[in-house]
Amino acid sequence: MAPTHTNDHDSLIEVLRPDRTAVLVHDMQHDFCSPGGTIYNRAAKHPETIAAVVGELVQLIRVARDHGIKIIYLQQMHLANAADLPPAHVKHLKSSGLAGTIDDIPCIKGTWGHQILDELAPEPDDMIVDKAAFNDFHNSLLDKVLRVQGVETPILTGVSSHAGVIGTFFGFLDYGYDFFIARECVTGYDPELHESAMNIMRPHTMGVAEILAAWSGTAP
Amino acid sequence: MAPTHTNDHDSLIEVLRPDRTAVLVHDMQHDFCSPGGTIYNRAAKHPETIAAVVGELVQLIRVARDHGIKIIYLQQMHLANAADLPPAHVKHLKSSGLAGTIDDIPCIKGTWGHQILDELAPEPDDMIVDKAAFNDFHNSLLDKVLRVQGVETPILTGVSSHAGVIGTFFGFLDYGYDFFIARECVTGYDPELHESAMNIMRPHTMGVAEILAAWSGTAP
Amino acid sequence: MAPTHTNDHDSLIEVLRPDRTAVLVHDMQHDFCSPGGTIYNRAAKHPETIAAVVGELVQLIRVARDHGIKIIYLQQMHLANAADLPPAHVKHLKSSGLAGTIDDIPCIKGTWGHQILDELAPEPDDMIVDKAAFNDFHNSLLDKVLRVQGVETPILTGVSSHAGVIGTFFGFLDYGYDFFIARECVTGYDPELHESAMNIMRPHTMGVAEILAAWSGTAP
Amino acid sequence: MAPTHTNDHDSLIEVLRPDRTAVLVHDMQHDFCSPGGTIYNRAAKHPETIAAVVGELVQLIRVARDHGIKIIYLQQMHLANAADLPPAHVKHLKSSGLAGTIDDIPCIKGTWGHQILDELAPEPDDMIVDKAAFNDFHNSLLDKVLRVQGVETPILTGVSSHAGVIGTFFGFLDYGYDFFIARECVTGYDPELHESAMNIMRPHTMGVAEILAAWSGTAP
Repeated sequence: MAPTHTNDHDSLIEVLRPDRTAVLVHDMQHDFCSPGGTIYNRAAKHPETIAAVVGELVQLIRVARDHGIKIIYLQQMHLANAADLPPAHVKHLKSSGLAGTIDDIPCIKGTWGHQILDELAPEPDDMIVDKAAFNDFHNSLLDKVLRVQGVETPILTGVSSHAGVIGTFFGFLDYGYDFFIARECVTGYDPELHESAMNIMRPHTMGVAEILAAWSGTAP
Repeated sequence: MAPTHTNDHDSLIEVLRPDRTAVLVHDMQHDFCSPGGTIYNRAAKHPETIAAVVGELVQLIRVARDHGIKIIYLQQMHLANAADLPPAHVKHLKSSGLAGTIDDIPCIKGTWGHQILDELAPEPDDMIVDKAAFNDFHNSLLDKVLRVQGVETPILTGVSSHAGVIGTFFGFLDYGYDFFIARECVTGYDPELHESAMNIMRPHTMGVAEILAAWSGTAP
Repeated sequence: MAPTHTNDHDSLIEVLRPDRTAVLVHDMQHDFCSPGGTIYNRAAKHPETIAAVVGELVQLIRVARDHGIKIIYLQQMHLANAADLPPAHVKHLKSSGLAGTIDDIPCIKGTWGHQILDELAPEPDDMIVDKAAFNDFHNSLLDKVLRVQGVETPILTGVSSHAGVIGTFFGFLDYGYDFFIARECVTGYDPELHESAMNIMRPHTMGVAEILAAWSGTAP
Repeated sequence: MAPTHTNDHDSLIEVLRPDRTAVLVHDMQHDFCSPGGTIYNRAAKHPETIAAVVGELVQLIRVARDHGIKIIYLQQMHLANAADLPPAHVKHLKSSGLAGTIDDIPCIKGTWGHQILDELAPEPDDMIVDKAAFNDFHNSLLDKVLRVQGVETPILTGVSSHAGVIGTFFGFLDYGYDFFIARECVTGYDPELHESAMNIMRPHTMGVAEILAAWSGTAP
């Protein structure tokens, strides 16, 4: 098993200094997280874990705002008629049990399913980055926004751990970011696969308590 | 658990038709796979699984050549002095136990560790794609080469399942490829993480016997 | 001077077959093309050339629709507060006389200036690709949409020839497309620079009459 | 005509401070710059301008080394059998008069034509970035290397102004760099197209004398 992150606490305060971090909220949209959402309906085996993540995120975002920390929403968006979706991607959704027909494609621009959850609705100073991939850096403005905003240590949250979260995990590595996954703010549709993803991401995983302590400068 | 791939056998013969597939060999280089290699020395907990993958790959490649199937090597390559490696990437290697100092950076161009294993040495008609990332599509010619060569169904092999292989898995999804991971031709440095990665990649995993049957047109 | 495109007419009918082409409409938005638009106000030295392009485009698009040819809008979009704009980009706008202050940044999402011109308003079956660059492929879904839609020979139109149009010209080359610039459907803010850009793009430039002839199958 | 760069001299010394700049040498390889090179033979209408650029570059690089400024070679590289070259790219080379057959493809890895000119041979501490595009950022490590090396103000040199140089010009803009084109260290195969390209790039063009003055801190 890979070791957990080994920064000592002093440097962690520095690494997570409010002006160089941001909370990234991935895929917290109706199609992924609400009863009636296309992917939620087919794939969410333990919906209570998604509800728990929403609760944790509401708190994490509130504290982040208090510290002046930036909030960046990573919002899945496909074009009408899934005009941007390769046949192989549709086939993957079907073979993974995530879609039955083309009508199940989630997050079509302008639909209810594409919208971010009411509890996590963006505020005017938040940023929203559209994306249409597992790795949120792919074909999106994510790298540009992080650099322009001076974000050196992004904190990733959202669903699903074993799909877009871990896909973006490798994006952070390839684009050269120091970063963390906020443990309690991430979950997956399938508990076994969630555990698998968290195993692989462990060296970059951090508990919310530790994050909050760093922000407040009280990390022991 | 996600379902296994559900193509019926007839269509599998079509999907894996020799003129539309290729064998992709990821990171089978001394620094990753040979005693004395920097990552191998630090991370390979069960070296015998790497030796087994080499044996499987020698056979898979031989049969592939007999069918006229293209072989594409994905070769990790860093510049001298790790000139292309972000500080956060170096930090990741350290926190994951993969490097102690900058001298442990693997696959510096021109070094022994950068070379592909003798048993798997490329032949003149094979293609070699340099890359320097977990997701082999990142900053590389991989997408271009696959499209120019007409490869619609790449078959991925190599090490390490829980790093570059799964990173590239998400690259295939984002770039819109139908693809497979050849089960016996992939392994990981850490057995527990290997199992985790294979869980996540299961819908795209296929056994070598099934691949060979499709190539020979004898899939039942 | 580079030679003009040398396809004979028969093959041109094939190359521009309605099912493998699309009309791409670049930056035809208020901030670039309407009195009151930020860039238009500062940079458009010969506004009548923009009006002429609008007229030509209205006709080209109408004929394209009659042939069932796809229309794809490439719509410049920046985040509120120019959150995605690097300081060097802002400096470039200033040194090029295109912006005086940060308030001149064009095409902020949700503003009037970001909207496509009324005369060229997209219809329900058209596609809109957001982008925030000179090369429209950069950080956008353009390559994906073209491939999913089977577009092998895109036809580029819009403004400004010596900025986003020629930037995207090199994108087409690098992504491996056969493509054309529709001569009368392109212009630039500065007549001298427009001529310079058209010189460089000449091998891929085609007159509207020739395009229409190919679509109708009557190319002599 | 767009205005020339308007930084006052004090800030120019800062912008071009040796630790935040680098000299980028684009395509100075035999196939582009030497008698017998494939592109040179077909396209170089005024070879003496290329010889002049070589002479200027030898001096610029020598002074840069004296200041400890990094030298980064951008080296065009195609795979054997042009395995990475889309059919549309080959068609472009033919329609532009740059290639007659597939055998004219320049810069195949391992060939003489791929090598950098002897007069400009890299030294051990220089960096070499492989690329296979008009925009040198495309599918290459260029952005990563510049960021890791702390290069904020790259200076671009080489051939051909109306192809790879201007393609990379738009790459610099899209990736958010402040940058300059060193006027006397750039030329093009076709004098008319060279002038066109220099017109478009004028806001980012700077004379060698001005660069040298900034480096030496003596800019008036």
